Amino acid sequence: MTPAGLHYLLIHFDVPFVTSADHWTLDIAGCVSTPKRWTMADIRALPQKTLRVTLECAGNGRAKFSPRLVSQPWENGAVGTAEWTGTPLRHVLEQAGITDKAVDVVFYGTDRGFDGGSEHNYGRSLKPDAAMSEDVLLVQAMNGQPLLPQHGFPLRLLVPGWFGMASVKWLNRIEVIDTPFQGHQQVKTYVYRKDSNDKGIPVSHLRVKSLLVPPGIPDWYTRRRLVEHGTVEVTGRAWSGAGVPIAKVEFGVDGHWQDATLDTEAGPYAWRGWRATWQATPGEHELSCRATDTAGNVQPLETPWDMGGFGNNVVHRVAVTVR
Amino acid sequence: MTPAGLHYLLIHFDVPFVTSADHWTLDIAGCVSTPKRWTMADIRALPQKTLRVTLECAGNGRAKFSPRLVSQPWENGAVGTAEWTGTPLRHVLEQAGITDKAVDVVFYGTDRGFDGGSEHNYGRSLKPDAAMSEDVLLVQAMNGQPLLPQHGFPLRLLVPGWFGMASVKWLNRIEVIDTPFQGHQQVKTYVYRKDSNDKGIPVSHLRVKSLLVPPGIPDWYTRRRLVEHGTVEVTGRAWSGAGVPIAKVEFGVDGHWQDATLDTEAGPYAWRGWRATWQATPGEHELSCRATDTAGNVQPLETPWDMGGFGNNVVHRVAVTVR
Repeated sequence: MTPAGLHYLLIHFDVPFVTSADHWTLDIAGCVSTPKRWTMADIRALPQKTLRVTLECAGNGRAKFSPRLVSQPWENGAVGTAEWTGTPLRHVLEQAGITDKAVDVVFYGTDRGFDGGSEHNYGRSLKPDAAMSEDVLLVQAMNGQPLLPQHGFPLRLLVPGWFGMASVKWLNRIEVIDTPFQGHQQVKTYVYRKDSNDKGIPVSHLRVKSLLVPPGIPDWYTRRRLVEHGTVEVTGRAWSGAGVPIAKVEFGVDGHWQDATLDTEAGPYAWRGWRATWQATPGEHELSCRATDTAGNVQPLETPWDMGGFGNNVVHRVAVTVR
Repeated sequence: MTPAGLHYLLIHFDVPFVTSADHWTLDIAGCVSTPKRWTMADIRALPQKTLRVTLECAGNGRAKFSPRLVSQPWENGAVGTAEWTGTPLRHVLEQAGITDKAVDVVFYGTDRGFDGGSEHNYGRSLKPDAAMSEDVLLVQAMNGQPLLPQHGFPLRLLVPGWFGMASVKWLNRIEVIDTPFQGHQQVKTYVYRKDSNDKGIPVSHLRVKSLLVPPGIPDWYTRRRLVEHGTVEVTGRAWSGAGVPIAKVEFGVDGHWQDATLDTEAGPYAWRGWRATWQATPGEHELSCRATDTAGNVQPLETPWDMGGFGNNVVHRVAVTVR
């Protein structure tokens, strides 16, 4: 679990200034039989569930691209795991009654601004089938406490197994529409593209990935690590998307791989701990880790090119000096 | 008050991995009559107090320097206010009995690493008089909850009125020494210097400063603001160092200044809210704010040069487009 305040944030515009949940409402409109304005109390009265979910920014690892899109130059830190408590969205959608015309379910936050000349509230859509999943939640609590302002207080969407952009924060409007959603954050930004002529593929599920906790102590500027020689217990985390379990993690030293030991699973959407023992000998070494999921997806050895810097799940490498 | 997770962090090395406070100890040694190892329970048994304190990184505003030291390129965000609960350090020092030979009281965290080729635990010192202040605390709680790992769990120093580097986190050792402390973080890093030949002046108290909450909505990349014309309530915060109160805040529009209204004081070490009304007319405008403290210190209109990028308290300027 990621402590409060160490979970990554990607906020396109401003954190809305909301001092109380009392007057927050959620509107459901469009291709539904019964449009409705929900209060927070209405939503809380529905069945609640808690899921442990790893969220990762689609741009995590962007710093490793060259050339690199002018956006967040994340190294590896834009990932975190929390326990989210809320109501399955389907309860609300079932009461609304999605009609046969529905093509997309669109979620809007109150955060508003400009991107590429387009003024809009942050908005993302899901296909009706995905929106009806038992695990897509209307969340009011994170780690047993009310949502922090920067995590979407008082209400956010949570779409487990997807990159973070799908989990719309400060949610106050759901619109069911009869044409594919063309919002800026759906069709302009979060799209895998090889070049600017590429129509592209929408970013959706997390990709299989792992990280290792850099052992030893760092240098302030370079972040290079110094490790004492001898037996070193190396630990890390691994996850994949769409609820696909991790099959194995390999731990690498200077390009030689060994199977790591997997910790107990913490749920279908949460990262899984792993550990490996390393006999560290004096000199320069490169540590790495590589995860494979049960669908056979494996992390690539080289960064898969993407113009927007999305979906970088290259193996994690950490340079260390052993003394 | 800054919500958990939005308070700035400046962590030189790694966040130490501490899962429980039960076995944490604090050693006091050196020029004292009674060296002692304190447990957390020992410290908690001493009188407790809670202070609302604004902490600011000495490097806040470094991004505005040119040329700029290779370090955190903070814009304005490295400042926050929290309620800190702990024991006045003097209780512990009195029981230890500082001897006449004492020149510096040195505080060490367990965070360790390299900086400029020097391997060290993060360490900072205070003069004995400053260390005996009633408001220098051994802190175990922030905003009524146990310290978060990244804020120094389970024990940190808090030195109100000083830049953040004085408030040593993960504190486990206090050494009273009979010569001026020459630690890397005391004499090498946090020093105002005009150039590399300058012996310099140690960074200590916060400088008078203010910020304004950018009104309107932002552009994602440029962060430029769009504001609707008409009456706009502009708000912000102002603070100074060493417990010196704010005397006034001026709000500027295109270089024309008016006095802002100060909110109620929230304590000698906490930032103070201010507000001003602006009749926004269509076009391009520059908003700014400038604080003056009761000692007569006033924010400069131009960034005061410093080689390390420390102590930048230039007036805050925000460019806005009004429509």
